[in-house]
Amino acid sequence: MGIVKLTMKRYLNNQLVEMVGEKVMVKGWVNSVRKHGSVVFADIRDRTGLLQVVGGKELATLSNEYVVEMTGKVNKRNEKYYNSDMETGKIELELLNLNILSKSRDLPFDIRKPDLDVSLPIMLDYRNASLRNKKVSDIFILQAEIVKAFREYMWANSFTEFQAPTIVATATEGGSQVFPVEYFDHKVYLSQSPQFYKQIMVSIYERVFTLAHAYRAEPSMTTRHLTEYTGMDVEMGFIDSWMDVLLMADDLVKHIFKSVSKNCSKILKEYDIDVPKTTKTTPIVKLSEAQQIIFDRTKRDIRGEPDLDPEGEREICKWAEEEKQSEIVFISHFPTKKRPWYTYQDPENKQETLSFDLIGRGVEWITGGQRIHDYDELVTNIKKMGANPDDFEIPYLQAFKYGMPPEGGFCIGLERITQNIMGLENVRQATLYPRDMERVDVRLSTISQAKNDKKSKKKKLNK
Amino acid sequence: MGIVKLTMKRYLNNQLVEMVGEKVMVKGWVNSVRKHGSVVFADIRDRTGLLQVVGGKELATLSNEYVVEMTGKVNKRNEKYYNSDMETGKIELELLNLNILSKSRDLPFDIRKPDLDVSLPIMLDYRNASLRNKKVSDIFILQAEIVKAFREYMWANSFTEFQAPTIVATATEGGSQVFPVEYFDHKVYLSQSPQFYKQIMVSIYERVFTLAHAYRAEPSMTTRHLTEYTGMDVEMGFIDSWMDVLLMADDLVKHIFKSVSKNCSKILKEYDIDVPKTTKTTPIVKLSEAQQIIFDRTKRDIRGEPDLDPEGEREICKWAEEEKQSEIVFISHFPTKKRPWYTYQDPENKQETLSFDLIGRGVEWITGGQRIHDYDELVTNIKKMGANPDDFEIPYLQAFKYGMPPEGGFCIGLERITQNIMGLENVRQATLYPRDMERVDVRLSTISQAKNDKKSKKKKLNK
Repeated sequence: MGIVKLTMKRYLNNQLVEMVGEKVMVKGWVNSVRKHGSVVFADIRDRTGLLQVVGGKELATLSNEYVVEMTGKVNKRNEKYYNSDMETGKIELELLNLNILSKSRDLPFDIRKPDLDVSLPIMLDYRNASLRNKKVSDIFILQAEIVKAFREYMWANSFTEFQAPTIVATATEGGSQVFPVEYFDHKVYLSQSPQFYKQIMVSIYERVFTLAHAYRAEPSMTTRHLTEYTGMDVEMGFIDSWMDVLLMADDLVKHIFKSVSKNCSKILKEYDIDVPKTTKTTPIVKLSEAQQIIFDRTKRDIRGEPDLDPEGEREICKWAEEEKQSEIVFISHFPTKKRPWYTYQDPENKQETLSFDLIGRGVEWITGGQRIHDYDELVTNIKKMGANPDDFEIPYLQAFKYGMPPEGGFCIGLERITQNIMGLENVRQATLYPRDMERVDVRLSTISQAKNDKKSKKKKLNK
Repeated sequence: MGIVKLTMKRYLNNQLVEMVGEKVMVKGWVNSVRKHGSVVFADIRDRTGLLQVVGGKELATLSNEYVVEMTGKVNKRNEKYYNSDMETGKIELELLNLNILSKSRDLPFDIRKPDLDVSLPIMLDYRNASLRNKKVSDIFILQAEIVKAFREYMWANSFTEFQAPTIVATATEGGSQVFPVEYFDHKVYLSQSPQFYKQIMVSIYERVFTLAHAYRAEPSMTTRHLTEYTGMDVEMGFIDSWMDVLLMADDLVKHIFKSVSKNCSKILKEYDIDVPKTTKTTPIVKLSEAQQIIFDRTKRDIRGEPDLDPEGEREICKWAEEEKQSEIVFISHFPTKKRPWYTYQDPENKQETLSFDLIGRGVEWITGGQRIHDYDELVTNIKKMGANPDDFEIPYLQAFKYGMPPEGGFCIGLERITQNIMGLENVRQATLYPRDMERVDVRLSTISQAKNDKKSKKKKLNK
């Protein structure tokens, strides 16, 4: 079979800026149609932005979101019609030929306003429509940049990427907030994090990372929690101390800020926000110190508590910004009883762990720390929490049995870092298709209804 | 808190080649210990390879897989002891100081032989031990290179990466091979592929990719199937024809071969294999043509069958290699009745679809094709299979309602492409922690046993 292309080459809208006078083909969505007597203007949207097309009555047959292919001549606009908001604001396409590739029904709401004027539930009910709004779709362009920056940093620092399984035989870290899976004749679970696997991998590759989906059966509807989220997980061996881990997290997050700032400057401007201000040395305060600072500043006494409350997180961020000129701050030395059983204790004070959170703009961004690498110590801790070490032998404890270097790591929630960089109110806005106890694309209340209504039909489909 | 590093800088083994005469610190695992009277040699393994250390009786206290930190002086070896198999074969470290970071129990089998002499089930029962074998761990170094090459290619061709959810409300493509998840009071499912989401994303970003875990409840134990696998998924809009999709897949896979060939040459040599031979124009044959070729060559008649059988796949690969000097070949135009309901039909013959598989070395590597982008046609097809279009409205059909360009895409199974490039017998070898109907890290037969034995203990843990 021969491979012959008879069609014209498609140009992207922003490529036309340099092509005045040429005849070209473009493709995209109809973003708007404006009639001025017998002259009709249409803005055509492609992945590079908008292009103004000018033509006659054939353009008037178009509706918003129609998918079209157009040939035309690239003209310079009259100077008084320059539009500085558009990359293609000095040119327009004079329509020669129009081909409708696909039509559109009416949209459920106006997607052309810069800010969508609908509630979050409606935005999610009509996810495809809301994503056609530029500000909404830009969220995930910026998210893709975060992921890219993450990977590039890891590769540059000789970390090996690996794939962690998400179906697991036991609840990862204990706790009841797991989703059971019907697995042939067995009950297995969705992984709460790739924690065990990334630790194991240190015994093989020293430095590893993964982008892994993780699942938490949290029966709550806060603005910060999802039942399925994406973790950017990092783990590294042969550390001299937990500070190696913290400094790696610090350097990575600054690299992400830098990449986003450089490559998504227009999106940040559109959201009227910037990446967090940082300083060469990010402030690090022990939890107990942070609580003292909060007490000194506000007289609110949360000293002795095992964590910062949301108000405390906001206050310590205010302190870091005012006193240290940094919008991010590390809180360290969380109490042993509040951190998972594999967390490394401070040899100088066994009540505290060599662990940290990075917080910024009033919320947590990263959590990490050094882990116990001694087999016997892990076995002791598992027994202490009333569990059976045999249940952790495969695959976890094996790795420690055969020689594990001192190690630690951290996790950055992808949706949360997107939310926090962009200043979004709800983590669901930073999630393409957020899952929570009320929604799995459809609202779950609807699904139960539907299931009862059409049980027989469903059965057919599943055959 | 101050950040003071009192420890010496760690060097990697392969960095010492250029450091003869210097005093350095290295860290790693004890790979072997050899006593020659009062002189003792130990090979230390780190992520860059082996290093010979020479010392006295303190080295004799070490056992295999101990994790150590050593300072010593880098010496040139006597020429007659050069070892050309080691990157550090012309040097050795004269031990000055030894620090044991972590001890090891005895390994379940010898991991130092180039080829592990144990069955696959034992390899997986002791996954951490088997991964400490160089040839085994190299599989996942090569796999990481595949993933890296995939992403770099996608980025370079302006594809946007996105995160597809894996918890879904309905079985993706119909069919019963899905895992149900107990989701609060509802039953939801693990996604069989990110198919729907990547298609939807085309209506927003035109060109998208994702690396997504996918789940198939296949109750079979073949050498090619996993219940959880990783798909490298690609989808692109504004195609002129299905050939755009095929050519993108072809170019991507050649890019992956090139990257692996360049960056993993030592691993390929170790496995005594090379990436598949390709030609500028990869052969493309219709399924019916392929069946005719097979009949002509072997007199085995599978003409009219809806697919190639394994023997047919091997034969057509032989043909492609012998007649077209290509170890990969595209099979196209699979019958409409055997492809999913969203597959685009050939306008010239509605019994066939504009779909393709890439096969090589006798097995399938990639599957893809053009999709239906017309809303009404999709609705018709959903009804035809006896399902209710309402169940597909959110999130899938919405995207087509509001204008979808002509589009198509493909998926490359990460474990399979790793297996096929490296010539591994079983896809489980190319999977860090393979899941199948008999194993989720532990053998499931054991888990049921354990569950019956310790029901009360389990309950405690899950609280």
